[in-house]
Amino acid sequence: MSYQYLLYDEEEKVGFISLNRPEKRNALSQGLLEELTTLLLKIGQEKKVKVVVLKGIGKTFSAGHDLKEIADGTPQDVLKLFQTCYLTMRAIREIPQPVIAQVHGVATAAGCQLVAAADLAVAAEDALFATPGVKIGLFCTTPAVFLSRNVGRKKAMEMLLTGEFMPAREALIYGLVNKVVPPGELETATRELAGKIARYSLSAIGAGKRAFYQQINMEDFQALNYATEVISLNTTTADAQEGIRAFLEKREPKWSDD
Amino acid sequence: MSYQYLLYDEEEKVGFISLNRPEKRNALSQGLLEELTTLLLKIGQEKKVKVVVLKGIGKTFSAGHDLKEIADGTPQDVLKLFQTCYLTMRAIREIPQPVIAQVHGVATAAGCQLVAAADLAVAAEDALFATPGVKIGLFCTTPAVFLSRNVGRKKAMEMLLTGEFMPAREALIYGLVNKVVPPGELETATRELAGKIARYSLSAIGAGKRAFYQQINMEDFQALNYATEVISLNTTTADAQEGIRAFLEKREPKWSDD
Amino acid sequence: MSYQYLLYDEEEKVGFISLNRPEKRNALSQGLLEELTTLLLKIGQEKKVKVVVLKGIGKTFSAGHDLKEIADGTPQDVLKLFQTCYLTMRAIREIPQPVIAQVHGVATAAGCQLVAAADLAVAAEDALFATPGVKIGLFCTTPAVFLSRNVGRKKAMEMLLTGEFMPAREALIYGLVNKVVPPGELETATRELAGKIARYSLSAIGAGKRAFYQQINMEDFQALNYATEVISLNTTTADAQEGIRAFLEKREPKWSDD
Repeated sequence: MSYQYLLYDEEEKVGFISLNRPEKRNALSQGLLEELTTLLLKIGQEKKVKVVVLKGIGKTFSAGHDLKEIADGTPQDVLKLFQTCYLTMRAIREIPQPVIAQVHGVATAAGCQLVAAADLAVAAEDALFATPGVKIGLFCTTPAVFLSRNVGRKKAMEMLLTGEFMPAREALIYGLVNKVVPPGELETATRELAGKIARYSLSAIGAGKRAFYQQINMEDFQALNYATEVISLNTTTADAQEGIRAFLEKREPKWSDD
Repeated sequence: MSYQYLLYDEEEKVGFISLNRPEKRNALSQGLLEELTTLLLKIGQEKKVKVVVLKGIGKTFSAGHDLKEIADGTPQDVLKLFQTCYLTMRAIREIPQPVIAQVHGVATAAGCQLVAAADLAVAAEDALFATPGVKIGLFCTTPAVFLSRNVGRKKAMEMLLTGEFMPAREALIYGLVNKVVPPGELETATRELAGKIARYSLSAIGAGKRAFYQQINMEDFQALNYATEVISLNTTTADAQEGIRAFLEKREPKWSDD
Repeated sequence: MSYQYLLYDEEEKVGFISLNRPEKRNALSQGLLEELTTLLLKIGQEKKVKVVVLKGIGKTFSAGHDLKEIADGTPQDVLKLFQTCYLTMRAIREIPQPVIAQVHGVATAAGCQLVAAADLAVAAEDALFATPGVKIGLFCTTPAVFLSRNVGRKKAMEMLLTGEFMPAREALIYGLVNKVVPPGELETATRELAGKIARYSLSAIGAGKRAFYQQINMEDFQALNYATEVISLNTTTADAQEGIRAFLEKREPKWSDD
């Protein structure tokens, strides 16, 4: 399968998706978002990799939606664009593989939303994050959803109301990214993080990712009750049985999906 | 309109509300809270300013409720006082303008609640925050609501259970305030932040603020679905249309409310 | 009352519970969890102390569940084990006394969950936190519940997906613990924190703790409305009346439970 707006390759159980519209600063057009959703769901279904890295070709991670596309579209086109973007975010959430955003340059508006919606993120020291919709009379309402669930209210409101850049170091402190490294080490650091996760059982990772997001929106003890049932059931899986035995026997486990 | 417990003036699209009971450390009495609610709602309705700055006259931002008023009141009076305080918090939330708390001296109990409930906050380096109700046998239950939604559980519980001061630097790290500056720069820094927001369209800011708080209490994808509808609709507003055109034409936008 | 897996003593209104299976790295077995739940509920009912400190004997705080017990158990035994652990967490939540985790060495898996579920936590500088279930094919789904409610999504996912240790300094920044001190000062610092809270009224502390967790899962203004009713009612308690009078009369309050 080949893509017009993306590059994709797999290496050592890690899938690497590159947004490939450098001349448009990797703008998240209708076409790109459709391809990205399709690819993510395909990865989720095939289960050939255990982790996905999402990055950008060129000078930026992604500058968000294509404003020309919004300006030229009918209201119906625009609704369709945002609904497609919604489906991309759902795909990130619903596939069993954790998605790591590898961020260099700028990640703005829906580009910043991609980082916020990802399960993990690694950023270059000079990366910049912003939700600048307010500058064009259009508050970044959709990016606000995951941004506010990453960095907290006050910081999210500051970014949304001023439209100004948040530097990578601050993104680390406020919880938008997991790691900040020198630009020259970005790829290595991201691969290292992905590689750590790729050693584990995809069935454990996938069940864990699903349960994590299910419980996070529940009341505390509803969540704990749910998690109690899930973990009890999961101890009966082949990989948990093998993992526990391997631990007690002081040997490396052998996962069913390896 | 003139106020007994407040000062108010407007300058360059920013409204400045000053709590003006310095002899009572800006205690949030029944009378002050009623005036503050009325003024906030008036500002929201008139739409003459785009941002509101809330500050205190004298040595403190606000020391919270007037304990003498609570001691002397009947249970019905006390209930009315807290219900009035509830209405003040609702007014902060419901007006389209972002409210920035400008904090110097101490912000304690309901004074700390004002900071937590504000959309943004700037603090002087020597500002102090506390929820010391526990010291008088009355846990700061109402301040706890927005405090816990700003600084997280463990830190909120620490403040609530010990009643001790949190210095401004820590308030910054834990997300209670957006910026900490030397005392001499507090007013300038707050005006600068307010000024940045006041350049934008009030219709965009107001719609954004409303949607932000609507979505923040929803399950993730219910929130994103809601935000998708809101942003799609908002692209059809005059200010978004103008903002996007101005961006593509590389010129400054002209907002409908300027 | 004596315990097989715990030590317990009371001193100056503080209860000290020590996990006492040093040879098993304080593994949270069925037996230990049952004793811990029983003891917590007893402390809550007796109201002889105002704060509880939870710590571990030996080199670690707690290494989580006993994997041998999980490996040897039937699925029904395992479900019972996790359900018992659920009841321990509920006991921590439901007793009126704040529970402070005093953490040295490692706190992993359900041991890390104990820290996250505690109301407050103090850690030694060299303490380490992890949720390493993924390494044995069993995602730490139950620890994820309170961990994600302490440190935020990205950091929680990083710990859960990599299984790696988070050092105490980072646990402080991300909100898992309240204080980090040199190992030699851990006990003193925890006692000092407990002692501060033990000066206050248990009826105020208990009502506050209960209301704090009730409101934290509510929509913002549902929470504030609830908190408004609670605080209004609580001003009529003997301890609040005494506390307010003592404050106005500039003297020390005398609590009903002292």
